[in-house]
Amino acid sequence: MSLGIIRVLTTSDDRVLQEHARILQTRFGLQSLTRCIPDQPNGIFDAASEAMAVPKIVQLGRELVDAGCGALFLSCAADPGLALLRAAVPVPVISAGSAAARVAEHLALPVAVLGIGTQAPAPYRSLLGQDVAYARPEGVTQTTDLLKPEGRARALACAERLLANGARVIAFSCTGFSTIGLAPYLRERLGCVVVDAVDASGMFAVEMLGGSAEEACA
Amino acid sequence: MSLGIIRVLTTSDDRVLQEHARILQTRFGLQSLTRCIPDQPNGIFDAASEAMAVPKIVQLGRELVDAGCGALFLSCAADPGLALLRAAVPVPVISAGSAAARVAEHLALPVAVLGIGTQAPAPYRSLLGQDVAYARPEGVTQTTDLLKPEGRARALACAERLLANGARVIAFSCTGFSTIGLAPYLRERLGCVVVDAVDASGMFAVEMLGGSAEEACA
Repeated sequence: MSLGIIRVLTTSDDRVLQEHARILQTRFGLQSLTRCIPDQPNGIFDAASEAMAVPKIVQLGRELVDAGCGALFLSCAADPGLALLRAAVPVPVISAGSAAARVAEHLALPVAVLGIGTQAPAPYRSLLGQDVAYARPEGVTQTTDLLKPEGRARALACAERLLANGARVIAFSCTGFSTIGLAPYLRERLGCVVVDAVDASGMFAVEMLGGSAEEACA
Repeated sequence: MSLGIIRVLTTSDDRVLQEHARILQTRFGLQSLTRCIPDQPNGIFDAASEAMAVPKIVQLGRELVDAGCGALFLSCAADPGLALLRAAVPVPVISAGSAAARVAEHLALPVAVLGIGTQAPAPYRSLLGQDVAYARPEGVTQTTDLLKPEGRARALACAERLLANGARVIAFSCTGFSTIGLAPYLRERLGCVVVDAVDASGMFAVEMLGGSAEEACA
């Protein structure tokens, strides 16, 4: 059984589309099927764009289940429409925000959230406290900023500040950090505890799909 | 939908039987139904007792699904019969060993396993390396030893040694550590990263059962 991956930005660039599928295949041997919601090339960036996306996410989830997916991965740290999606499909649903926030909460040490928005997304505030420490790298307001040469260095500086202010765990609230390999980069330079949202989700997905996922891999 | 909990030791003491159910209810609001395998009052302690338990575990899993459980939790760090159980039931199955080992592996820092057996159980060696650091507290060879007054102090001394030898993460491979509240005890005294096997499993279970589990709680 494969994992259905829901991307919340519209893209016709297959490399961008398959980014998280590639990470989950490499890390966990997960076989997956990725689709993106239509007509939102800028993804979800405010309340209006989130409201517009939610029915599309639910619809896409239904389609992925019809296509044979045994579990779904909503690949967005804000968990947009997660409760509605779960109510709409008969398979387990993992979401990047809940997965990462759960792991961080499980460790029960001071957590800081590293993201690109103006505040920690809802699942992080819900599980880690409304006043959970939060920061975003200087000059980074959208995922594409992370791909610039200075992206990782700025994220490193931001993580250093969060640790200096008492954080013991850095939890990512942006799946773009996974694309630039920020977790190993921070662990290597700062020796700190990092929770990567895509990797955390993959861990949940592989245990959910159990042996079946491993067998399904060629 | 509730979580079916499989205990791998036979007990007629309802307090012992419901131990993990209570933890998961308190921590995650998870509604569950616990049953134990028959005729193994000493649980699983060697290869022969594991071989004897596996068909009973699979049978019990089927019964819990028939009773309406939407996911199963195999509450043993050795994951006895996990692959067979997963193949036998149409619902996701979490197991304490895999869950804890996955979380430890996700953090990608030096891990040491703390247990009560002679070596780290199979899922830990499989996910963290055959030579993963391992230790058990002095004088502790069965779960009941942990309940003695000196149980926690000895586990603390053991964790201190593991950290002094370079571990950054302590992963529990005994569910008895959850019963004695060892994770918060170690975090408070040593400030270290601890992965508790029952708590890690609960985190997977609550995300698997999604909103349904929360709604099901009275």
